[in-house]
Amino acid sequence: MKNKFIVLEGIEGAGKTEACLFIKKILKKINITNVVAVREPGSTLVSEEIRKLIKYNNTLTKKAELLLFYASRVQLVETVIKPALMQGNWIISDRYDLSSLAYQGGGLDINQHLIISLRKMFLNDCKPDLTIYLDVTPKIGLERIRVRKNLDKIEKKSLNFFVKVRNSYLKLAASDSDIITIDATFNKNVVKKEIKNQLYQWINKQCL
Amino acid sequence: MKNKFIVLEGIEGAGKTEACLFIKKILKKINITNVVAVREPGSTLVSEEIRKLIKYNNTLTKKAELLLFYASRVQLVETVIKPALMQGNWIISDRYDLSSLAYQGGGLDINQHLIISLRKMFLNDCKPDLTIYLDVTPKIGLERIRVRKNLDKIEKKSLNFFVKVRNSYLKLAASDSDIITIDATFNKNVVKKEIKNQLYQWINKQCL
Repeated sequence: MKNKFIVLEGIEGAGKTEACLFIKKILKKINITNVVAVREPGSTLVSEEIRKLIKYNNTLTKKAELLLFYASRVQLVETVIKPALMQGNWIISDRYDLSSLAYQGGGLDINQHLIISLRKMFLNDCKPDLTIYLDVTPKIGLERIRVRKNLDKIEKKSLNFFVKVRNSYLKLAASDSDIITIDATFNKNVVKKEIKNQLYQWINKQCL
Repeated sequence: MKNKFIVLEGIEGAGKTEACLFIKKILKKINITNVVAVREPGSTLVSEEIRKLIKYNNTLTKKAELLLFYASRVQLVETVIKPALMQGNWIISDRYDLSSLAYQGGGLDINQHLIISLRKMFLNDCKPDLTIYLDVTPKIGLERIRVRKNLDKIEKKSLNFFVKVRNSYLKLAASDSDIITIDATFNKNVVKKEIKNQLYQWINKQCL
């Protein structure tokens, strides 16, 4: 089958990072080994620098932050994602631009049309084939990340902020057939099993 | 008279930075002392960090660079320019978004509509009252900056690049009545005299 671009989405503590590693493993089991894993914002020299600015600078305005996310994303798309896809590799990305719609749009009340315009202007020809949205309640998500040291600016935001982000994710997922929602409130093994089932089902469909 | 937002534009070596200082001086002579001077990209903590990324990173793609310029600009507009104008201060800026149209649009061939869309989306309500474009040939401009140490990525670009940037500036200036073009090929004193004349004429017009 043709190589694919898969994205993992969800609020803090949803289990995206572990899910990315897990998906790489289960793809390997079906002999898909040409997989490039990336994270957002990051995964290029410039994007990692931008990540630091976004995560630890408290003076950034909402719109400047949105533009930094897109600068980081465009750099990643043009120098890593597109070239890797062109060479026949699969991509697994820990977040992509659905995060901007959920966090900056839903969480920070930036007009969704502004974000959708940026998407059209800068990412139009690089859409994920599949987005897996790991859904947890903010209470559970924040509880899971409490053990982490050095929480960044975004991870420190209020429960109410994450409620808005989650509501936004749920709405976005409901309106896009390329997004699969998985209940990630259960324990890891249950969630992994569900990711595996859903992913295999999706792959089988692609082969029809 | 009401406070104003004045921008200096031109290619490397046109004399913008000195002109900004000079304008501050001549405004002082007519008792306008509440003047905030800024430079682009820069003049906020975040924007100065972005400036470093833009000026010294050779892996940046053209579109990621454009978005970084806008992130820096939006941060400057929202945290410095707009608040200063609201408090009745004048602003003198060493570059603003005409630079993006001339450099990224004219010089790097990014579609002008993309840049104009960013302007409309992010700067629509913050337009300079006056832009002074200092026009020099790239040959003269580059000769002037040759004495500088540690030229950055942009200053090191080819003569042909600056020919395209200048042509773009000339076209943009010809189509906008809020842009005054000054021939900056002459020696400093002649250029300063012309800046003074033009600025006083413009100020007198504003008072009519």
